[in-house]
Amino acid sequence: MKGLPPTLNQVIESFTRFPGIGKKTAYRLGLHVLKSNNREIKEFAQALLDVKDKINTCTSCHNFAESEICEICSDNKRNQSIMCVCEDPSDIYLIEKTGFQGVYHVLGGLISPLDRIDIEDLNIDSLEARVHSISELIIATDASVAGDTTALYISKILDSYPIKITRLARGLPVGGHLEYVDEATLTKSINERVELNP
Amino acid sequence: MKGLPPTLNQVIESFTRFPGIGKKTAYRLGLHVLKSNNREIKEFAQALLDVKDKINTCTSCHNFAESEICEICSDNKRNQSIMCVCEDPSDIYLIEKTGFQGVYHVLGGLISPLDRIDIEDLNIDSLEARVHSISELIIATDASVAGDTTALYISKILDSYPIKITRLARGLPVGGHLEYVDEATLTKSINERVELNP
Repeated sequence: MKGLPPTLNQVIESFTRFPGIGKKTAYRLGLHVLKSNNREIKEFAQALLDVKDKINTCTSCHNFAESEICEICSDNKRNQSIMCVCEDPSDIYLIEKTGFQGVYHVLGGLISPLDRIDIEDLNIDSLEARVHSISELIIATDASVAGDTTALYISKILDSYPIKITRLARGLPVGGHLEYVDEATLTKSINERVELNP
Repeated sequence: MKGLPPTLNQVIESFTRFPGIGKKTAYRLGLHVLKSNNREIKEFAQALLDVKDKINTCTSCHNFAESEICEICSDNKRNQSIMCVCEDPSDIYLIEKTGFQGVYHVLGGLISPLDRIDIEDLNIDSLEARVHSISELIIATDASVAGDTTALYISKILDSYPIKITRLARGLPVGGHLEYVDEATLTKSINERVELNP
């Protein structure tokens, strides 16, 4: 950008590489860097380097981890007999917010023939090696064709193990109005209706 | 954030300190850092440190500068006899985009009694020291009360110098429709109307 010092331009240019950050936002963030105190920006730069240096993949569940085994897998207070299968490490953070207290297994993707992602590309072998010690497997993939296909495939593969295999419920979003819900979701919510006084 | 490695949390936390970046955006940016290649993030971290290390204020015009004198002041191809006065170094970037080829002087603020910013807090002495060498001074402050007050004050102070003092035109925004323009702007645009065939 004309009229700005090269180092500031370099920071602005770097910011534009982030998702959802355009030129104007990057410029505002760059100015913020200039105005922030030295210590804060040094900490930020160090944190960026630390993330790239220290974060690997957990050898057990394939979550992000700073050591060989991630914090969740090595937490003895968690229920190790209930396991949640998800597509991506970032899904773990979403499920953690629900208060789920079991462990996870990250697939690293969903079956998608168009993207040439086959079942062999997912972390299925390591999942099979872990199911011996659990009683329930929750398959928390997206409610999409790829998610459902993957869930079905996993349930077939693990059919012979004496474990309960479940998937996430489908239905009305909490706070949702009937008139705004699509037909497919409404059909699901009728088919999978729940008894009020069981 | 629960379920994330501490170093990633540190980066996310740093991102939330930037203006306009909430928790969710910071989380997305943090994940992007994880997925980016090492070289890119190292360059970004270095750029952040460079900005804090290298950027100072130009001793002549108070713009951002990496050396004692900024790139604009030291550019001999620019017209050194026409000077644009603005509030903030970031305004320079905006004016540069118009193709302005003169030099600048940054006030570092506007007169604002409520914020206890007085004329003495602005870079007025250094402006007065520079006007000897120019023929026109364009006061490009905001079209607000503070901007107008500051512009008036500067024009009074520099009254005795043989220079032309101008301010930015007021009127319809380019592409603007009359029905959407406020009354004060429309009044200005009538008072400062321009001859079509001068």
